[in-house]
Amino acid sequence: MNFSSKLLENAVTEFSRLPGVGQKTALRLVLHLLNQDKADVERFGAAITKLRNEIQHCSVCHNISDSQVCEICASHKRDKGLICVVEDTRDVMAIENTSQYNGVYHVLGGLISPMDGIGPADLSVDSLVERVKTGEVREVLFALSATMEGDTTIFYLHKRLKDQPITITTIARGISFGGELEYVDEITLGRSIATRVPYEGTLSR
Amino acid sequence: MNFSSKLLENAVTEFSRLPGVGQKTALRLVLHLLNQDKADVERFGAAITKLRNEIQHCSVCHNISDSQVCEICASHKRDKGLICVVEDTRDVMAIENTSQYNGVYHVLGGLISPMDGIGPADLSVDSLVERVKTGEVREVLFALSATMEGDTTIFYLHKRLKDQPITITTIARGISFGGELEYVDEITLGRSIATRVPYEGTLSR
Repeated sequence: MNFSSKLLENAVTEFSRLPGVGQKTALRLVLHLLNQDKADVERFGAAITKLRNEIQHCSVCHNISDSQVCEICASHKRDKGLICVVEDTRDVMAIENTSQYNGVYHVLGGLISPMDGIGPADLSVDSLVERVKTGEVREVLFALSATMEGDTTIFYLHKRLKDQPITITTIARGISFGGELEYVDEITLGRSIATRVPYEGTLSR
Repeated sequence: MNFSSKLLENAVTEFSRLPGVGQKTALRLVLHLLNQDKADVERFGAAITKLRNEIQHCSVCHNISDSQVCEICASHKRDKGLICVVEDTRDVMAIENTSQYNGVYHVLGGLISPMDGIGPADLSVDSLVERVKTGEVREVLFALSATMEGDTTIFYLHKRLKDQPITITTIARGISFGGELEYVDEITLGRSIATRVPYEGTLSR
């Protein structure tokens, strides 16, 4: 592209480094910012720099946090005997949004993926084993994506944890609530028949 | 959404103010930035703030510029007798990318749109008339979108300029190069038949 201004070109180049943002989108975003008040743009730039410079990871669960120990780990209302193992912060947010979970988390920071060169050493696995070994933990719940990488990670973590006196669980798999049967893929449908559960007069919604 | 960190929430809120960026996309972009080096994020923030604080508009053509007069207006190689009137900077860039134009520009900063409350007073119309009145200008070429707003703006500007001793032109309308006839809309096709041009042994590509 033929920019009339070096400043503009720099800003567009920076924006187009973001995932899913091409040069045309970057230009549209930058021109939008140019039309905003100086104070607003200043705040935008500052929010990002501040985030990167001041953010911490919780020393217990490795979740993104403003303080050394995150709000969830610091809360007395949370059940410290139940640890939910997730891939990243987004999963913590998704589960928190359900309001169905009262335990604590452990953020792995990724999934085991030999294709991408990510092994157990790149993830916060050892600290999970340490947490379990303290003896305070009753149950570890795996809430990982139902993909090859997720399954591999569960398999590995199970191997590391199976000698500990805890219950190991995973979130239920099956058809989604509201899912129409004819559109469900064969594997999910087949498995949900094989792993059918007793009907007790009501479906837990 | 349920953020575990105020810093994260602030950054996501700022990002989701951008056009076409929802909360989920904003979160994805912010988490991407969190994984980058501090220096890179610093540069990202600085590029935007610097752009907003230091950018100028060319005092001649109102295009975005790093200096008081933009590179195009300052160039001795450009034909100052031909002014191309466009809506905004993106149009200047699009035309510059064709390498087919050697005149100068005049950036209106928008189009007349009573629906959005944009009248001639909100656009750089008076300065265009002033430029034409200097007597250096031979031709004014309108390169505006083929929409209601573009047509209204051309109509208004023509009224303001028609007493000046200049040629007033607009970019050609018709079917696109590479366009298949059966997919062209009726209005474009009908008009391109009505405004047919003599064939001179070759099509100007």
